[in-house]
Amino acid sequence: MNDHSETPVAPIEPFEPPYYVAVFTTVRTQEQHGYSETNARMEELVKDVPGYLGMDHAQTPGGLGITVGYFRDADALTQWRSNTEHRTAQQRGRDEWYESYTLHVAKVERSHGFTRRP
Amino acid sequence: MNDHSETPVAPIEPFEPPYYVAVFTTVRTQEQHGYSETNARMEELVKDVPGYLGMDHAQTPGGLGITVGYFRDADALTQWRSNTEHRTAQQRGRDEWYESYTLHVAKVERSHGFTRRP
Repeated sequence: MNDHSETPVAPIEPFEPPYYVAVFTTVRTQEQHGYSETNARMEELVKDVPGYLGMDHAQTPGGLGITVGYFRDADALTQWRSNTEHRTAQQRGRDEWYESYTLHVAKVERSHGFTRRP
Repeated sequence: MNDHSETPVAPIEPFEPPYYVAVFTTVRTQEQHGYSETNARMEELVKDVPGYLGMDHAQTPGGLGITVGYFRDADALTQWRSNTEHRTAQQRGRDEWYESYTLHVAKVERSHGFTRRP
């Protein structure tokens, strides 16, 4: 069920706080017609939002999906949230693709990363 | 690679803000000896932390893993971070199990959930 257009091979590295995370946890339905195309379109569209920093995604096959979007400030999130095409996709998600989801919007206070030495 | 002891069938529901999320994004190495046992132990141990609210986890096979821990306040996170057994596990993670990871600690400002009607 890894049908995202760009599978990351490394986690997004930490940014300098403060920044925002939008944590979107989902369980999908059996009805996934159009999901992949819409998801790919949203991944492109969000890149146009000023202050969008990046995205991580993981999907347990047949289980939970987690998408984490990173944004420089609350304004960037507001802009993404109010995007018309995004809102239409969200509605279709509730109508068809999601069994359940939770969205947590949070301001990052600290972060750090680790990369193994070669 | 879904070797977590309890695979959730639904996302954790939103809590009343403010609360904290610890977003842990990982790529693992080929060397996973002992990982499952330690991970299961950590999932049990964190439940003893006052203010621990729950956890979501997703793992793309061969790709990114994301664990999101939910905590009532910063004190709960501090206590979990300073737990001796947890610190030992973290060090072993850097020595053996993780190719790279990022941790984002953030204060949730708003959240909402959706559950499909039966």
